[in-house]
Amino acid sequence: MDFKQVVTARYAAKKFDGRAVPEGQIDALLDLVRLAPSSFNLQPWKILVIRDSATKEKLAPAAWNQPQITTASYLLVFLADTDLESLIARMDSQMKTEGVPDARREAFIQMVSGFASRMDGPARLAWAQRQVYLALGNALNGAKSLGLDSCPMEGFDSKAFSEILGLPPHLVPTTLCPIGYAADSPSPKLRFSKDYFVMNHAPAPAVVPA
Amino acid sequence: MDFKQVVTARYAAKKFDGRAVPEGQIDALLDLVRLAPSSFNLQPWKILVIRDSATKEKLAPAAWNQPQITTASYLLVFLADTDLESLIARMDSQMKTEGVPDARREAFIQMVSGFASRMDGPARLAWAQRQVYLALGNALNGAKSLGLDSCPMEGFDSKAFSEILGLPPHLVPTTLCPIGYAADSPSPKLRFSKDYFVMNHAPAPAVVPA
Repeated sequence: MDFKQVVTARYAAKKFDGRAVPEGQIDALLDLVRLAPSSFNLQPWKILVIRDSATKEKLAPAAWNQPQITTASYLLVFLADTDLESLIARMDSQMKTEGVPDARREAFIQMVSGFASRMDGPARLAWAQRQVYLALGNALNGAKSLGLDSCPMEGFDSKAFSEILGLPPHLVPTTLCPIGYAADSPSPKLRFSKDYFVMNHAPAPAVVPA
Repeated sequence: MDFKQVVTARYAAKKFDGRAVPEGQIDALLDLVRLAPSSFNLQPWKILVIRDSATKEKLAPAAWNQPQITTASYLLVFLADTDLESLIARMDSQMKTEGVPDARREAFIQMVSGFASRMDGPARLAWAQRQVYLALGNALNGAKSLGLDSCPMEGFDSKAFSEILGLPPHLVPTTLCPIGYAADSPSPKLRFSKDYFVMNHAPAPAVVPA
């Protein structure tokens, strides 16, 4: 399945058939998510994998009882990680382990630490959440490439999820991604035409002397 | 090239060789971007395609003269579109044209209009920008699937870009994506291990009566 086939076939499944996705498939999916790009390669996310029905049932009311939550085999909760200092420390240690030259590592860590220190709380969260959507994109396309279905979901109460899941404040539930086998079928894809969303920049004409 | 090969081979090219990407390839790339998912399918983005060297040269200082800007064949500027009312009106009209049943269309438009009306300016922008990253993800992976290289870039002055490009306030430059043929080669991919970013949820043990 090439990328065009993947993005064409992928759709937001509204209901799953409850069949269990083999553990190895979720592992393969998380490998694809792992390779997603992010700003400064900081990967400011954690992915909470929920397998058990009891937890899904407990979360469902905080997602307006949308049937994806309880009918999916796995519920992935994408958390934005705003503890950038811990991520930077981890990156520093991993760069050491992987033999990145000291000068390059130190310059990089200094740059990204400066970047992080200039963002206040809301800016950090907004920044981390944007990166999460790159990871989410890999999860959605990745699922289809593995023969699985998925659904990107923003329709849930992030605070209620935090409470139910006992999450620390620096990990913010940002989007859900149930994974399973669809029990519905896709509607025709409705997208704006390229004429509408593509703007072709025309440079200002050169000034010709009279 | 399957999806795993795409996400493995894709990397942030820091310099391009200046060769022109055929127009048809950019067209094919924009087709892949077009199919990206977004919340409520609102596609709150515009993609400004810059081909000419003069404009790239003019923009470069507002992106700290990173060589990707001027060496890429195409510079895509991803704009978050915060004029949600226009997007909703366009969606309404497209749903009519495509024969979506009136009751379904009206319920959908009412729901999404309510959603939009509850967001203030900053919330709209943050929401639209998150969606842009789904489109960006399709562009980055899509480019690789077409044999092209790319680089996701946040390092630029969004306000300066707006001024230089003469953009209206509702279109906010959010991320850049130069497209071309890389003149560098990828470093080994450095990513956190799954142990670090995957959290396996363990449900609370059932209370067993004594």
